[in-house]
Formats: sequence, C-alpha cells, structure tokens
Amino acid sequence: MQLFDNIKFDDKGLIPAVIVNVADNRVLTLCFMNRDAVDKTIETGKVHVFRRSQNRLMIKGETSGHTQLVEEVFFDCEGKSLVLKVKQNVAACHAGYMSCYYRKYNSSTDSIEINEEKIFDPEKTYKT
Amino acid sequence: MQLFDNIKFDDKGLIPAVIVNVADNRVLTLCFMNRDAVDKTIETGKVHVFRRSQNRLMIKGETSGHTQLVEEVFFDCEGKSLVLKVKQNVAACHAGYMSCYYRKYNSSTDSIEINEEKIFDPEKTYKT
Repeated sequence: MQLFDNIKFDDKGLIPAVIVNVADNRVLTLCFMNRDAVDKTIETGKVHVFRRSQNRLMIKGETSGHTQLVEEVFFDCEGKSLVLKVKQNVAACHAGYMSCYYRKYNSSTDSIEINEEKIFDPEKTYKT
Repeated sequence: MQLFDNIKFDDKGLIPAVIVNVADNRVLTLCFMNRDAVDKTIETGKVHVFRRSQNRLMIKGETSGHTQLVEEVFFDCEGKSLVLKVKQNVAACHAGYMSCYYRKYNSSTDSIEINEEKIFDPEKTYKT
C-alpha cells in the first residue's frame, strides 16, 4: 500500500490521527494507530484504533456503535500524522458530545466553558 | 492557570496540539508542546512548540516569519490533547503549502494526490 511508503510510526509503533467531521470540518478527536489499525481502517473504511490502555486493536465505536466511516485520508509533510475525514455516527465523544473538544479555555478570564450541547446520555449508552 | 488543571502531559512531558485555521476550520498541522510551550503560547498569543529534534522551545514561524495567532483554545475529554484555532500568517507548512496535509491517499487507486496549490517557495523563504 502506497500509504505505508509515506508515513512513519514512532518509537512505540504509533502514528497520531486527527479525526475530522466531513460535514463541517470540525475536529472530533485525536487517536493513535499502529500499523494494523491503519491497515484495518483503510481495508474496512471504518476507523480502528490501537487502544493503549488495553494494548489491543479495536474499531472506534465498538461499545457505543458510534462508528466513523472514512471519506478521505491525508498525511502530513513529514509523514508523522494523519488526518481522516469521516462521517460520524451519532457522536465521537464518550462524554456525550459530538466532539471531544467540547470545552474551551478562556485565557482572558482564566476559565473553562462548555462549548456545545450534549447529544446522548453516556449512562444509557455505555451499560455496565 | 485553569488550563493546567485540565490537561495532562505524556511520559515525555508533551501534549499534542492540533492547529486549525480559524478562517476555514482546516487542520493546518499537528505539533507537540511541553508545559513551557503551552504557557508561552497562552501568554504571548502565538503558537510555541517544543521542537523534539532540537530539544528546545521555539515560536512557530521562527525562521520563516509564518507565525500563528491563537484565537481559541480547546482541550479534549481526557485532557490529553489540544485544539488551537489560529490566524495563520502566510502558510503553515515548510514545504510551501497552507496546510501540512497537502497530500491525500486515494485507497481505490492506491495512489497519492497533491491536494492544494503551493503558496510560497521554500527555497526563497528558508535561506541557508
């Protein structure tokens, strides 16, 4: 695959991938992929990540069903990161928001503001 | 600073920051910041990065003059990454393009496509 000739993995075998909502160009989340995750993401057209805390490959949205369908794949000038434009199913953030970046830091008042509405209730989505 | 109560640095003391063009929401680049770089970025309103290859703090655009003025600061649900919306001076990529993600991978043809026009000539901008 041509893509692998153009990207590099770090000393842990990972590459960061910025996930962008194709609908409005908004950054949804940042995840880390190993070679298998990149391979599986391209092959299936659905974002797969290497979950560092569990040391395993998984499809994004495994538990919630909030999968991400890949529309476009970009890589940076140094081949050290990816941008994936996706169609987001429901929402990207496990906290219930469309984007993981739902909080904004206001430096003039040194305060945190919630920047968007909650889309789903995490307690109902992630049953124990 | 409230921001530091809400973000974490990794085992190398770094946090990834996605730099987004405030004009069109496009991802320009991904950089890594240590605590000093975040501090200096907020204090001056200009993006500073920790250049891993040189092991030092520097302002983005130090050589080229292509600085980035910070308009908005977001952090993710886990406090493990930042999104900075900036006004980009000239262009973000040292290769002469607005964005570092000027190349696209086309999986159906397994080929690489240049996705944007060059804005400046790197040979004239980075004099040796």
